Amino acid sequence: MKRALFIGRFQPFHKGHLYSVNYILKEFEEVVIVVAAAQYSYTLDNPFTAGERIEMIKAGLSDLYDRAYVIPIDNTLSNYEWPRHVLNYTPRVSVVFSNNKLVQILFKTYGLETRGTPVLSGVSGSLVRKLMAEGGEWEVLVPEPTANLIKEFNGVERMKTLWAMRVKMSGERFDE
Amino acid sequence: MKRALFIGRFQPFHKGHLYSVNYILKEFEEVVIVVAAAQYSYTLDNPFTAGERIEMIKAGLSDLYDRAYVIPIDNTLSNYEWPRHVLNYTPRVSVVFSNNKLVQILFKTYGLETRGTPVLSGVSGSLVRKLMAEGGEWEVLVPEPTANLIKEFNGVERMKTLWAMRVKMSGERFDE
Amino acid sequence: MKRALFIGRFQPFHKGHLYSVNYILKEFEEVVIVVAAAQYSYTLDNPFTAGERIEMIKAGLSDLYDRAYVIPIDNTLSNYEWPRHVLNYTPRVSVVFSNNKLVQILFKTYGLETRGTPVLSGVSGSLVRKLMAEGGEWEVLVPEPTANLIKEFNGVERMKTLWAMRVKMSGERFDE
Amino acid sequence: MKRALFIGRFQPFHKGHLYSVNYILKEFEEVVIVVAAAQYSYTLDNPFTAGERIEMIKAGLSDLYDRAYVIPIDNTLSNYEWPRHVLNYTPRVSVVFSNNKLVQILFKTYGLETRGTPVLSGVSGSLVRKLMAEGGEWEVLVPEPTANLIKEFNGVERMKTLWAMRVKMSGERFDE
Amino acid sequence: MKRALFIGRFQPFHKGHLYSVNYILKEFEEVVIVVAAAQYSYTLDNPFTAGERIEMIKAGLSDLYDRAYVIPIDNTLSNYEWPRHVLNYTPRVSVVFSNNKLVQILFKTYGLETRGTPVLSGVSGSLVRKLMAEGGEWEVLVPEPTANLIKEFNGVERMKTLWAMRVKMSGERFDE
Amino acid sequence: MKRALFIGRFQPFHKGHLYSVNYILKEFEEVVIVVAAAQYSYTLDNPFTAGERIEMIKAGLSDLYDRAYVIPIDNTLSNYEWPRHVLNYTPRVSVVFSNNKLVQILFKTYGLETRGTPVLSGVSGSLVRKLMAEGGEWEVLVPEPTANLIKEFNGVERMKTLWAMRVKMSGERFDE
Repeated sequence: MKRALFIGRFQPFHKGHLYSVNYILKEFEEVVIVVAAAQYSYTLDNPFTAGERIEMIKAGLSDLYDRAYVIPIDNTLSNYEWPRHVLNYTPRVSVVFSNNKLVQILFKTYGLETRGTPVLSGVSGSLVRKLMAEGGEWEVLVPEPTANLIKEFNGVERMKTLWAMRVKMSGERFDE
Repeated sequence: MKRALFIGRFQPFHKGHLYSVNYILKEFEEVVIVVAAAQYSYTLDNPFTAGERIEMIKAGLSDLYDRAYVIPIDNTLSNYEWPRHVLNYTPRVSVVFSNNKLVQILFKTYGLETRGTPVLSGVSGSLVRKLMAEGGEWEVLVPEPTANLIKEFNGVERMKTLWAMRVKMSGERFDE
Repeated sequence: MKRALFIGRFQPFHKGHLYSVNYILKEFEEVVIVVAAAQYSYTLDNPFTAGERIEMIKAGLSDLYDRAYVIPIDNTLSNYEWPRHVLNYTPRVSVVFSNNKLVQILFKTYGLETRGTPVLSGVSGSLVRKLMAEGGEWEVLVPEPTANLIKEFNGVERMKTLWAMRVKMSGERFDE
Repeated sequence: MKRALFIGRFQPFHKGHLYSVNYILKEFEEVVIVVAAAQYSYTLDNPFTAGERIEMIKAGLSDLYDRAYVIPIDNTLSNYEWPRHVLNYTPRVSVVFSNNKLVQILFKTYGLETRGTPVLSGVSGSLVRKLMAEGGEWEVLVPEPTANLIKEFNGVERMKTLWAMRVKMSGERFDE
Repeated sequence: MKRALFIGRFQPFHKGHLYSVNYILKEFEEVVIVVAAAQYSYTLDNPFTAGERIEMIKAGLSDLYDRAYVIPIDNTLSNYEWPRHVLNYTPRVSVVFSNNKLVQILFKTYGLETRGTPVLSGVSGSLVRKLMAEGGEWEVLVPEPTANLIKEFNGVERMKTLWAMRVKMSGERFDE
Repeated sequence: MKRALFIGRFQPFHKGHLYSVNYILKEFEEVVIVVAAAQYSYTLDNPFTAGERIEMIKAGLSDLYDRAYVIPIDNTLSNYEWPRHVLNYTPRVSVVFSNNKLVQILFKTYGLETRGTPVLSGVSGSLVRKLMAEGGEWEVLVPEPTANLIKEFNGVERMKTLWAMRVKMSGERFDE
């Protein structure tokens, strides 16, 4: 079985992610989608819970889903141990797709092949979040079923609150 | 969307689990399969890693997979907080299936409906593990694609070693 | 200010505990009541949450409460570091009351005086829990306001379920 | 029993906090005071340990203490799970008081009523800490018994050291 | 540089351990001694702190110490991730010495060569601890400088207390 | 036995550290070198793993090693509890050497003497890392055997990647 790993935070899942998955599935039979930083939510960079992100991804993948695993992985304190933590919770793969140089270095120490993912220019998670916060046209950057879920989650309102409060980290600003 | 939660350790995924999933999917559109005690592996009760279990489950579900989420969840120290931890990593559900009375009590404190799962008599995870350890006929209790994966993982040999060493918990017996 | 530390799990708070607090407050102006193993609940040895135990203790102390602190403390993995963890969350004290020899040894390594607590014979947490589980007369061993709270929490029913299931540890027996 | 939750870091407990407690206790019989970020101390934003803060709060509350619980709660990594963590360690409440929009959103997902707390203008924890660090008149912003404790703890000197070193987080700057 | 890993709990360091180190250093230039279960102490199986064990090992190794690293490693919840955790804190090695079959299996998944350690018959950590607890002649099983340190630590008295109380795990039996 | 504690992150071990160890060993028989922030690696401030750092330190110490312990210690969330955590994993000492005012305050609460370490001017970990990242002459600031190890670890290339990516914390920037 030819299977590849694809890592992201998916805050939220957007058309660039879908493009990458399509690309990977041209060569590989299955893709293991790692929902990284899974423990975080209700922050500026991580507004959605892992459960919400998984729901969005399955909806956005549509017919591709039966060739995908979608697995939440918590960040660990140790960068060096993190790839082993990922491998503990994921099916076996032969290639890791990531454009992050550090991710590539870390997985290479395990003898795994790493490759860059082709990117759809003009789409990124931070852009989608910024547009949500500022009342811009974010929907066009996101698969339609995912956009509908974001609305069900009151995601836009949530994003605006987090933006206004500038909640950078978990546990921050809980008082004065 | 009618969606239900189904909780197990799946050590390994067996025909009783498949029977339950089939039962749930007669009434619900989707099922969220929680792979509990996800952080444990290479012990008597939890021989397989979360990644191996997820691979087994997708293989065992076959055509049903496109209506299923398969999500690893670590055990937490607090029973009281555990259901909220589960809900953090899983899509929204309206019903929780479990025959475990404690699981039912804990989820009820969240206002979630809980129901017993119909059970295929004569199949259980502990029986399968025992048969594997003692050289018995465990394959008939497990979906065929799952059985093949267990062999690829050298699962029987691993189970025999753990049985011989009686490795009950993680970190146990690492020396003398 | 003369202040003493008094450590227990208070599963549940009983007349023996109240007797000890009364004894301590004859000599000390204030008592710091440590609710140990605070993270555990819904198990055989720790049926009640820390919040429930704190509510029981304040009710049971009645007029003595204004001379008491009631502070939940999680168990730590390290026995050696545990007393420092306790001291991190508690007001300053000069004496530690405990009949547990290990607790005494551990606190002595900090230079703190330790003393045994006088015990009301015939009352213990394990006895109260056993009576609750077996339908015995547990109420007489517990201050009346505490007994009322236990009933509000459906504590007896919960204790019977845990007893029947033999839930020894958190995260145990979540499936088969 | 009408009971409310009131959340703060109390670094240190000041007259604004006392004002809020008085306000809450006009309507509610009891108040549960959550000492948040309990694990942190000896940093710029969290100079005092949970134990010191609890000692300050009881002293500052004076006669009101017999209607109050004072409970240290660690921050958790997950904002989404944090309210359940709070509820695990606290007596039952019907209302949560907080002026923090995120805290309000998070508790609402539990079906709990949230309300803003009336604020005494011109008093805040960050102002008190700044005055302490810069040699200003911080005592007038703090209840007198609390101010005395801060002096016993050498709090002003500690605050000046942390200010000079700019110790933002735990574990920071332990060497070069 | 030819370097090997040698894993134990060293509760306490005994002549069997010294025999193994001597054996390893006949073939290897350096040995990395992993003090496993480092976080545990003041229990029946782990009476000594990591710091005490390290002090004992250096004393017991005497002239061999300049070819040894002595490194405390906490147990992790995941057996599968544990070898990577070990490798994170230890210098590079080419061979892992252990007579524990599970340790061998786990390290093999990293592609590391594992070998059994020759054992001095009649010596084991559990025997030394038992003799200490029961007033037997434990000193002959331990290098003399190590035996002296155990006495400085009041190790025999501590072992007797733990034996009498049957303190199996951390955090156990802190009350009734 | 006169023994002292010396704390650093050793990212990397440089001639200033060696100078301090030499100074300490003029007065003390043994030094306990604590490798702080041990869990971190592959970040801007902590490029090397604990294992790599320990290997560098032993090499850099050369003949002094037989009078030294080199022990990795993870940072803890609580500054107040951190010294006790250090003491849990280290041999007994009478003096703690550190130029960090906070470290001094924290250890003093344990009744331990603290002293400033004499510093070799013009050498610091942050300078060495900056030179490595920018292609400067870092080797002269580091003992020769340590410099050789850094090259074996591809440390310069790693440092340049982290610098270019500005990887401040673990788990950061794993996607977009």
